[in-house]
Amino acid sequence: MSLESEIVAMLSSARAAARKIALASTEQKNAALMTLAAMLRKSRTAILTANRIDLERAHHDRRAGAFVERLTLNDDRIEAIARGVGEVAALPDPVGATIDAWERPNGLRIEKRRVPIGLIAIIYESRPNVTVDAAALCLKAGNAVVLRGGKEALASNACLAGLVASALKESGLDPAAATFIDNPDREAVQILKRHPEAIDLIIPRGGVALKAALEGSAVPLMPHFDGICHTYVDAAADLRMAEEICFNAKCSRPSVCNAMETLLVHRAVAPKFLPAFAARMKKAGVELRGDERVREIVRDARPATPADWDTEYLDLILSIKIVDSLDEAIAFIERHGSHLADAIVTGDAAAAARFQHEVDSATVYVNASTRFTDGFEFGFGAETGISSNRLHARGPMGLAELTTYKYVIKGSGQVRG
Amino acid sequence: MSLESEIVAMLSSARAAARKIALASTEQKNAALMTLAAMLRKSRTAILTANRIDLERAHHDRRAGAFVERLTLNDDRIEAIARGVGEVAALPDPVGATIDAWERPNGLRIEKRRVPIGLIAIIYESRPNVTVDAAALCLKAGNAVVLRGGKEALASNACLAGLVASALKESGLDPAAATFIDNPDREAVQILKRHPEAIDLIIPRGGVALKAALEGSAVPLMPHFDGICHTYVDAAADLRMAEEICFNAKCSRPSVCNAMETLLVHRAVAPKFLPAFAARMKKAGVELRGDERVREIVRDARPATPADWDTEYLDLILSIKIVDSLDEAIAFIERHGSHLADAIVTGDAAAAARFQHEVDSATVYVNASTRFTDGFEFGFGAETGISSNRLHARGPMGLAELTTYKYVIKGSGQVRG
Repeated sequence: MSLESEIVAMLSSARAAARKIALASTEQKNAALMTLAAMLRKSRTAILTANRIDLERAHHDRRAGAFVERLTLNDDRIEAIARGVGEVAALPDPVGATIDAWERPNGLRIEKRRVPIGLIAIIYESRPNVTVDAAALCLKAGNAVVLRGGKEALASNACLAGLVASALKESGLDPAAATFIDNPDREAVQILKRHPEAIDLIIPRGGVALKAALEGSAVPLMPHFDGICHTYVDAAADLRMAEEICFNAKCSRPSVCNAMETLLVHRAVAPKFLPAFAARMKKAGVELRGDERVREIVRDARPATPADWDTEYLDLILSIKIVDSLDEAIAFIERHGSHLADAIVTGDAAAAARFQHEVDSATVYVNASTRFTDGFEFGFGAETGISSNRLHARGPMGLAELTTYKYVIKGSGQVRG
Repeated sequence: MSLESEIVAMLSSARAAARKIALASTEQKNAALMTLAAMLRKSRTAILTANRIDLERAHHDRRAGAFVERLTLNDDRIEAIARGVGEVAALPDPVGATIDAWERPNGLRIEKRRVPIGLIAIIYESRPNVTVDAAALCLKAGNAVVLRGGKEALASNACLAGLVASALKESGLDPAAATFIDNPDREAVQILKRHPEAIDLIIPRGGVALKAALEGSAVPLMPHFDGICHTYVDAAADLRMAEEICFNAKCSRPSVCNAMETLLVHRAVAPKFLPAFAARMKKAGVELRGDERVREIVRDARPATPADWDTEYLDLILSIKIVDSLDEAIAFIERHGSHLADAIVTGDAAAAARFQHEVDSATVYVNASTRFTDGFEFGFGAETGISSNRLHARGPMGLAELTTYKYVIKGSGQVRG
């Protein structure tokens, strides 16, 4: 059987399962998730054995430490995954909720009701926990899910996906509602993107290679890509607050999409703000790259090149630019930012309002760290990811963003004139 | 200059204009729309002269009467277009509205705020009124718009688009916020779909040829395609009500997407319902196509072929099938429907609830005609179109569906732990 026909057959089963999970009751879905949490805890040995296969291959291939770190499972991580599944079970079911309701003058009663999206394909890289996290969230929102993980985690992912399918089956649901593609051929992604009749949405979680692989997708995409985030320290900033916010935005977790990559400082406060801040950043191991005016104040900063303003370092590197005005800061962010998360530090309410009105990013902060751009931090109760899209869902996602809606209309014989 | 570089230059100006119209005040946008309405009324002669060029070409090309009908402008139609623009001006501005707001335990105040999508390309066919209608709606929602109409209406569209641009300019807004592509080369559509860095969304309004032309679009699509709608007359239906609803769904305007194409009748009521209904349909000039059991009751119905169940007639043709149960009706609709609008006629509340829960269509009716699937009929105040998408917007669209959102977050120095 060709890979195409193999995957088409899988999609066909997953599609049929999507219809069933969409109509499953909250109790059924929660029972499956609680069963899954218990199975994860009981299957530690099997999971760790599978994970060892992936780790041995990673060592053999001399993969970097950070890569191995992401790939590694242990008792604590398995427990965290199981606990996460239990937390998803405890969240309110978004399906069936009334989003809006009204009555028309002709007596038609219209209800806008939340419903599942259908079949969602998740394409992800080397963290095996995504297999379970993403499946649990999709299933809770009434969607079937096709899982396509990185080949480096194939054994771990296959083991975890097998547990998800078993938990569905034990709870009387169709195991095809969580379908794992165990063929590591890269062509599989190309096949998935050609089948919009089966797949309603692809959520890619990965880097530029995955982005390129999905170009021309016939299936709508909801990418979770990375970010170039800015903090602007305004002339009216509380400089102590600015230092804490900037330190947090850069250093608390530099490898993630909501970390700051570029700092903009108003020229009026730069001479006062930058020396102490630069010293603190250097102590934290951060390499600074500045424009000419910055380097007059921070002598040992490396000169920033034009490419720096468009680079996502995801590392302990920060580019710094001095600006003459709020307008210049906003224009710079609009030109170089990735429209994910940007912040202003200011005590000037008018400047804050203008910044929040004019910066066109998914999340725009006044006097807080860009690191809050996250579903948990927003109170959504789940780590569903952060959408880079402008449409359907933008920024931090909750369970609701894994649903769509339909209108149900009740009449008493109305016809259109 | 190549067509590609010509269009890229236009998109670049439109992109810059999008930024400005997004930040324009409600007053500015409304003033531009009121100016446009006045200009349309004052420019009747010019519009009709341009329209005559298109009509002469249509006559020369021996186009069908319905085509010419759609293409034709006259005093009444120009007045209707101008009135429509005034109505859009009178609608509440969706931009800046607070969709949701809450405070986190750490004191962060999060507001979900409605904002424009950005630059929207509308690709449409032969009705010149779409040039003005679509532009007015996009502009009111703070979006810039690229208009690409059918070449058969080129002169009319160019004249109307020129008025839109003039009205923007007269009101101090950037005329590039409504950019008309006056090159009739079909390659233009291929170029548009390759520029996601400039265009945020393409709204195609047309038939299968346009659908095919947009395959592999790198820009997200929000299609307005057609529908295969069903009405199911249940065993517990009020048959007099059923007849009125079915007649309306088929006959009130057979050429539109929300018209009924297939009628399902429960076998228990078919012998009583079908004879009178069939007689009424025949009197209205409707050709009936039935399965075997239907033809035992309606002798002169043509036999339905399997292709009939998947055909959108958009004409005075109706396919009819007898089903044994509610389950069979739902399964049939799920298999053959286009998930736009489907209806049940029943007095049985449990059957109605199951139908509305299990039929996965954008609009699901109990005891009303599918013809109500329309923004005006839903009370949205504008004819923004009917989305065939599952994501972002589904079914009838209002101005809100031409927007997205961002989160604005106010803090007092919060950093993430």
